[in-house]
Amino acid sequence: MSRQFLAEGGKLPFSGGDYTIVGVVAVVALAALVIGYVLLKEVLAAGQGTAKMQDIAKAVQEGAAAYLKRQRNTLAIFGVIVFLLLFILPADDWNEKIGRSIFFLVGAGFSFAIGYLGMWLATQANLRVAAASREEGGREKAMRVAFRTGGVVGMITVGLGLFGAAVVVLAYTGQAPKVLEGFGFGAALIAMFMRVGGGIFTKAADVGADLVGKVEQGIPEDDPRNAATIADNVGDNVGDCAGMAADLFESYAVMLVAALILGSTAFGVHGLLFPLIVPAIGVITAVIGVYITKARANEGGLVTINRSFYISAVISAVLSAIAAFVYLPSSFADFGGDFAGNTGNPAVIATVAVIIGIVLAAVILKLTGYYTGTEYKPVKDVGKTSETGPATVILSGISVGFESAVYTALVIGAAVFGAYLLGGGVALFAVALAGTGLLTTVGVIVAMDTFGPVSDNAQGIAEMSGDVDEKAAQILTELDAVGNTTKAITKGIAIATAVLAATALFGSYSDAIRKAVGGTGEFIANIVSPATLVGVVVGAAVVFLFAGLAVNAVSRAAGAVVYEVRRQFRDIPGIMEGTTRPEYGKVVDIVTRDSLRELATPGLLAVFAPIAVGFGLGTGALAGYLAGAIACGTLMAIFLANSGGAWDNAKKLVEDGNHGGKGSDAHSATVIGDTVGDPFKDTAGPAINPLIKVMNLVSVLIAPAVVQLTVGDSQNTAVRIIISLVAVAVIVAAIVVSKRRGTVISDTPAEIKA
Amino acid sequence: MSRQFLAEGGKLPFSGGDYTIVGVVAVVALAALVIGYVLLKEVLAAGQGTAKMQDIAKAVQEGAAAYLKRQRNTLAIFGVIVFLLLFILPADDWNEKIGRSIFFLVGAGFSFAIGYLGMWLATQANLRVAAASREEGGREKAMRVAFRTGGVVGMITVGLGLFGAAVVVLAYTGQAPKVLEGFGFGAALIAMFMRVGGGIFTKAADVGADLVGKVEQGIPEDDPRNAATIADNVGDNVGDCAGMAADLFESYAVMLVAALILGSTAFGVHGLLFPLIVPAIGVITAVIGVYITKARANEGGLVTINRSFYISAVISAVLSAIAAFVYLPSSFADFGGDFAGNTGNPAVIATVAVIIGIVLAAVILKLTGYYTGTEYKPVKDVGKTSETGPATVILSGISVGFESAVYTALVIGAAVFGAYLLGGGVALFAVALAGTGLLTTVGVIVAMDTFGPVSDNAQGIAEMSGDVDEKAAQILTELDAVGNTTKAITKGIAIATAVLAATALFGSYSDAIRKAVGGTGEFIANIVSPATLVGVVVGAAVVFLFAGLAVNAVSRAAGAVVYEVRRQFRDIPGIMEGTTRPEYGKVVDIVTRDSLRELATPGLLAVFAPIAVGFGLGTGALAGYLAGAIACGTLMAIFLANSGGAWDNAKKLVEDGNHGGKGSDAHSATVIGDTVGDPFKDTAGPAINPLIKVMNLVSVLIAPAVVQLTVGDSQNTAVRIIISLVAVAVIVAAIVVSKRRGTVISDTPAEIKA
Repeated sequence: MSRQFLAEGGKLPFSGGDYTIVGVVAVVALAALVIGYVLLKEVLAAGQGTAKMQDIAKAVQEGAAAYLKRQRNTLAIFGVIVFLLLFILPADDWNEKIGRSIFFLVGAGFSFAIGYLGMWLATQANLRVAAASREEGGREKAMRVAFRTGGVVGMITVGLGLFGAAVVVLAYTGQAPKVLEGFGFGAALIAMFMRVGGGIFTKAADVGADLVGKVEQGIPEDDPRNAATIADNVGDNVGDCAGMAADLFESYAVMLVAALILGSTAFGVHGLLFPLIVPAIGVITAVIGVYITKARANEGGLVTINRSFYISAVISAVLSAIAAFVYLPSSFADFGGDFAGNTGNPAVIATVAVIIGIVLAAVILKLTGYYTGTEYKPVKDVGKTSETGPATVILSGISVGFESAVYTALVIGAAVFGAYLLGGGVALFAVALAGTGLLTTVGVIVAMDTFGPVSDNAQGIAEMSGDVDEKAAQILTELDAVGNTTKAITKGIAIATAVLAATALFGSYSDAIRKAVGGTGEFIANIVSPATLVGVVVGAAVVFLFAGLAVNAVSRAAGAVVYEVRRQFRDIPGIMEGTTRPEYGKVVDIVTRDSLRELATPGLLAVFAPIAVGFGLGTGALAGYLAGAIACGTLMAIFLANSGGAWDNAKKLVEDGNHGGKGSDAHSATVIGDTVGDPFKDTAGPAINPLIKVMNLVSVLIAPAVVQLTVGDSQNTAVRIIISLVAVAVIVAAIVVSKRRGTVISDTPAEIKA
Repeated sequence: MSRQFLAEGGKLPFSGGDYTIVGVVAVVALAALVIGYVLLKEVLAAGQGTAKMQDIAKAVQEGAAAYLKRQRNTLAIFGVIVFLLLFILPADDWNEKIGRSIFFLVGAGFSFAIGYLGMWLATQANLRVAAASREEGGREKAMRVAFRTGGVVGMITVGLGLFGAAVVVLAYTGQAPKVLEGFGFGAALIAMFMRVGGGIFTKAADVGADLVGKVEQGIPEDDPRNAATIADNVGDNVGDCAGMAADLFESYAVMLVAALILGSTAFGVHGLLFPLIVPAIGVITAVIGVYITKARANEGGLVTINRSFYISAVISAVLSAIAAFVYLPSSFADFGGDFAGNTGNPAVIATVAVIIGIVLAAVILKLTGYYTGTEYKPVKDVGKTSETGPATVILSGISVGFESAVYTALVIGAAVFGAYLLGGGVALFAVALAGTGLLTTVGVIVAMDTFGPVSDNAQGIAEMSGDVDEKAAQILTELDAVGNTTKAITKGIAIATAVLAATALFGSYSDAIRKAVGGTGEFIANIVSPATLVGVVVGAAVVFLFAGLAVNAVSRAAGAVVYEVRRQFRDIPGIMEGTTRPEYGKVVDIVTRDSLRELATPGLLAVFAPIAVGFGLGTGALAGYLAGAIACGTLMAIFLANSGGAWDNAKKLVEDGNHGGKGSDAHSATVIGDTVGDPFKDTAGPAINPLIKVMNLVSVLIAPAVVQLTVGDSQNTAVRIIISLVAVAVIVAAIVVSKRRGTVISDTPAEIKA
């Protein structure tokens, strides 16, 4: 790859037309925000149901807001530290350094803001979806509110992502890559913390509530007598909404960043602008997708959503092709320099690459729908095994997860390889363009995903208030099952962006190393070298460790919930009879405290593991490490998401009256499966996507520093080893501290047990 | 690395002294076989208990023999096909080709013979251990018989492995590497089939027996009224004994082969002979280890076994160091050629490398003991979570598995990296020498492993016969729990050989490619290239797929057992009252048929996946593929083995009277955990080790052919793509066929259901 365009004094030769294009992109991004606002007005205007429903919703809103406020305070400190640390890392000049640190804060702030907004909006929408289900034509109305809510989050996600990137490009042009690294890193880091913290919150509350409520006391889910129900509903909002929204924003931002860095380095202005144009097209088609989603009678909710997705995907593909042929030259000769010898038509290559990304999204949608939807064989099979008990439910769910992970990973691999085959000299950029193709679908995907937790919570509010009749409850149950599948789809798409972004970021990684070495040759991390191979093993191991830590954190925090709910049943008379209200707030407080405490260990692991490997074992091992983490992380993320989704929906199948229905042995077997799946699909699984991004960006950021300390004298070697050991010490200390809080659900602090 | 020594006309300059050394090694190998025979006599001479016990043992022996006979017939056809196919693959001349194919058969034959012997011997020993437990001083006697039985298998394993390698070296000297590839491939291929087939057999019978017996009918494990009990005991022998013995032989052979190939290529005669000397030392220390293992009162069985291990490990280290200083030169200058410039002392490097391997084995032993032993925190924690139900048991077991996998993988990675750091130019050979260090412990490890299933089966025979009093039963239960841990340890060590062998085999892989290209430069698979990265993802995916297929196969086969046992309870009056004997043979037949049918799909995947990747995506992607499979496979194998071991022992903890004891809710929760763990630890997990070896050797074998078709014209490209597509088609067809048999336990063929 050539750096010819950047060599021109760090400035790209922007023409007036180029500024216009970026300006138009920025306007499209702002338009997305405006449309988000319009949709928001519509959602808020919907009916809010009975006073009792509003009461419950208010408790949920307050709990969620309190959690995010405390999380913001925790993360702010962390953000400031990283802001300062970034100054230590090498850059071309202070302009780059300052820009990188400032846009790190901007990325982090956007990430948090979108998470907060997603959560706030969901808590508003839950109530309105529940209320809509009670009205005439309830199914259509409820679906409309749920999907429009998602539309708001989708618009804000793509709007802020695109706007941020456009501003960086306008302000920094040639120096944009380094600044974009900061922007992407901020987005990914905060998203990871929100995914982990929210994931622990939601599942600790959920598992804790289920263990005492459903398993011990035999009362239904969301029964108001259960002290953990409000916490459970708060969890759906801070985990599935806040965490998810931040995560998808991060996916969008990092993929865009990777494409822009690669594009500008390889092709100068054209390479910088085209990856902005494609997502701008995605904004337009997302608007279309959100507005055309209308539920039809006699049609599953998933079918409705899928139709909108496919229509907007096709429009994206067509518009992107037109943009490629209008904007890009038809011959590489026009780029001059290193590319003069390349045959092939850049416009055709770009078009095919973008379409590969769009098709990839469609295939993942289809695959995930198949493996986690209630109407297909896999979930039906898991449901069937409930007749032979919980062990077979667990085994069949794990099989479904493994299998779907394999096929999804192979499809993602095929997309990368396909893009790679497209053009010899521009292979990496083609991969990045496939990533931007994927981005055109993100608006609709976010809308689909938000649908899930909103429906889930609406069901919770309905059940707790008792103000919803059976027909309305049926509607909400159906929407919830659809939500389980859409949630799994989003995770599949998010992890696909992780692979594509990581592949593209390998380009910036090599570039950073080559530049630091001062050479012009290619950076090589030979996989048949033991150092690189060990890196691959360590990278894969960190994914397992991260997943294990997340599951453990849920267990511990759920233990605290179990003891508190039990205590309330024991100490507060009248709860079981329904004459006294349990102390909901107490459980919310416990889960808030625990989940914020628990997110530290996996968070520190993500940041410090690449530092330990990079400084300790060198840049070759670090490249291997990233590859191992990407490969293993992709499979693990999809496995965890889809087996969890399959278990949840298998339970719904049984609750719908199959295999003995509610209260049967088969039902308890699927409840056990669902409980196992909870931390899989909502804590460990979804956090792997931002984990990979964070590790990738940390590696790109530290690579020049590693090189500086590697090529130097023995004093440098000592510094390098010390940095690595400090990083290892931080990770070990974090693990030891969390271990001392106990390792399993039964290890609850004495003050809570008592 | 240099090929200077091989360049001398394909012949190594063997001196008389060199022949003497190889001769001595061969004699040591034969001595191991003789000692094995002596130990065998001792085992067979032990008392055989009551007539009823002998009856049961006979039924088990017959079932196991029948299974292996049918398996032999199936595998023979497969072996002949591969024998012929090997001729298609490139080699230097017909001498190499013929040698490779013939020694492929020898390796396969040895692998099968050791498996058969291990199984036959275990069926003899089970009875004798059960009988010994009834005698005065029963604990010591039972342990002695169990461990001596293991000693026989251990001696034969190392004896045949070392003898086979020595013969190849004597007969082929300079051409030994290619022939050794055949030998190792034969051993690995058959071992994989025996692991998979035996693993499916043992767990289908076990899970099936438990689901109807323990879960549905509430009768104890090994109750003679359960028609699946004999099949369950047969399974312990064909899976844990036959499969395990073949697997460890394969681990030994392939590691040795990798070291010899690398050594001879890099250092000529010295490099070829030293990796033979070290395992020969291991034979001597293994004999010591087996003879000094004596149970002491007031000492856990694991402590006794560990002591023997540590003593023999220390002796191995000392003797290896002496051998290094006596045999190897003290300066690289003595090797001349490419190594003249290397500083450092070869004897010191070799000593440290061998010790790294020995220490690695000790650390894995310690780690696995900690994570799966009943006396340590992890298993106690899993036991504790039984109080909050099966879901928390599953989650905590998965956490234990993840965590232990991470630490074990990191330790293995550290060993590889440590050996790599030892010597710049000889890094890969140092890794291989660490592998031979690991091999010195294999004799004792095999003895430890065989201990497990023999104790398990002895307990089965005792329970079924009813001829064993409570004290004796207690002894057997303790031994069984120790066996669960030793089994997990073996799997850890086996997978460590996989990583070390694979790292070393990467050397032969690069070498094969370099030679095929005709160049002298280094082979490079740059991990930051999308093609290599996609290879890593695909390699990791194949591990997930393989594990999923294996678990699924168990589910299906167990379903058939469930229906048959239910049918017998229903159709044959008097079974439940104990007045009529169930038709044990029928269940054995069903499982035999099913497990042989089921092993095809994972087996074909192992052989054809690297062919598909190599010919389809090229040698760089294939290298990435191997790295992904190694990294992900290591973690997956240990995760599956250790979480399974932890669940099994957590159940034992509860059965020992903790958390409510037998029959409590906590007990059922741990039974569910154990049932989930069964296919983890005994089917999918252990088969991953031979899987990695098979894929590695297939890659080494096909590499030259891939290169020949890559550098050629477009016709060659077409051939390459066609081969890849055929391989993909074979895999897809195998998966589709097995899917059509159903995907879950409830999908049992109608003729059995009826």
